[in-house]
Amino acid sequence: MSDLNTRTATTANELRTEVEHFYARQMQLLDDHACEEWADTFTSDGTFDANGLPAPSTGRAAIAAGARAATSRLEAEGLVHRHWLGMLTISENDDRTITARSYALVVQTRLGGGTSLHRSTLCHDVLTRDENGRLQVYRRTVTRDDIA
Amino acid sequence: MSDLNTRTATTANELRTEVEHFYARQMQLLDDHACEEWADTFTSDGTFDANGLPAPSTGRAAIAAGARAATSRLEAEGLVHRHWLGMLTISENDDRTITARSYALVVQTRLGGGTSLHRSTLCHDVLTRDENGRLQVYRRTVTRDDIA
Amino acid sequence: MSDLNTRTATTANELRTEVEHFYARQMQLLDDHACEEWADTFTSDGTFDANGLPAPSTGRAAIAAGARAATSRLEAEGLVHRHWLGMLTISENDDRTITARSYALVVQTRLGGGTSLHRSTLCHDVLTRDENGRLQVYRRTVTRDDIA
Repeated sequence: MSDLNTRTATTANELRTEVEHFYARQMQLLDDHACEEWADTFTSDGTFDANGLPAPSTGRAAIAAGARAATSRLEAEGLVHRHWLGMLTISENDDRTITARSYALVVQTRLGGGTSLHRSTLCHDVLTRDENGRLQVYRRTVTRDDIA
Repeated sequence: MSDLNTRTATTANELRTEVEHFYARQMQLLDDHACEEWADTFTSDGTFDANGLPAPSTGRAAIAAGARAATSRLEAEGLVHRHWLGMLTISENDDRTITARSYALVVQTRLGGGTSLHRSTLCHDVLTRDENGRLQVYRRTVTRDDIA
Repeated sequence: MSDLNTRTATTANELRTEVEHFYARQMQLLDDHACEEWADTFTSDGTFDANGLPAPSTGRAAIAAGARAATSRLEAEGLVHRHWLGMLTISENDDRTITARSYALVVQTRLGGGTSLHRSTLCHDVLTRDENGRLQVYRRTVTRDDIA
């Protein structure tokens, strides 16, 4: 392999590991009910869309409000959710955004009860970087496996 | 740590990340019912064996046919499968093949219904590279946890 | 990005990949019922604590004994466990220890039967290195999601 190929491979591997760490932190924030910090992982004009939602949420205030509604419901019902993202593929686009496709599972545990799979989804993201180089979600589209 | 050790560690990390990306893409192909592209991730003489199958499949035509039969069954039954590979350990062999051991879960969702774990397995692979340096499966052996 | 930033990012990515490989190997040892090898992945004064246990285990002999008791129970009941760690975030501390936070799932399969989620937990580790640079667990704290 030429030096150039080696460098290219290294960069792609680096990027994938960085995206995985970003997702791990992002999911921990949501599952810790840190809704404002969760919303801050989106761009200020970021969009969260899902085929299970009536309409997309745009902007951090709307994204945080959606998370607060969901976490309040879980707390009222004595449920704990853990979001697992995995099987991640990424590609870099000409405009330096990153397209990421992954599987996302929601694992649900009832306090004092059992654990089960709540949902299986596809997560399709367009990621960008803020002025400090940190990854952010610009567009997220979540597709539930149970909806044809 | 010496420079040599650092280089060795880097190479091992690079390889593991590359294998993870390969598996993510490979599982997405299968779950997208892209059976021919799935078969192309095996070498032309590649083998897929599993303790749940009557006999191993050898060669891309046989591997694609097996995938088509499985995906047709899922479509007829209104089921969606997502294959998750994880807990991956790898080692490089003297002949430059790569031995990879991982856990593989099959997550099953019924259209309009719920999500559950269909199967838990061990996946033992021997990986090689094609003439362009791309990873391929030369031997895959899947062992279901429910079969002693 | 400056060279310095690139190096720093590389190091963090390298470390995260190394920790993931360590966890994969460690979980495979436990699930293979290699209880002594599992205990050797802890420091000699390592501690394993969990909110589901009456008291923490300290030292490899105690940690191995705990694993042997658990694996004997599984064998007697015809159950196979697979531990999945994921959604890993890490940070390096001033004393060169590593703090790692991850989700841990226990997937349970009954021989001749079905597969289900046995447990969802948070795993909080302090990792160090032995004299050969290999990662080891110094403190592990596992928090079950079903216990408030």
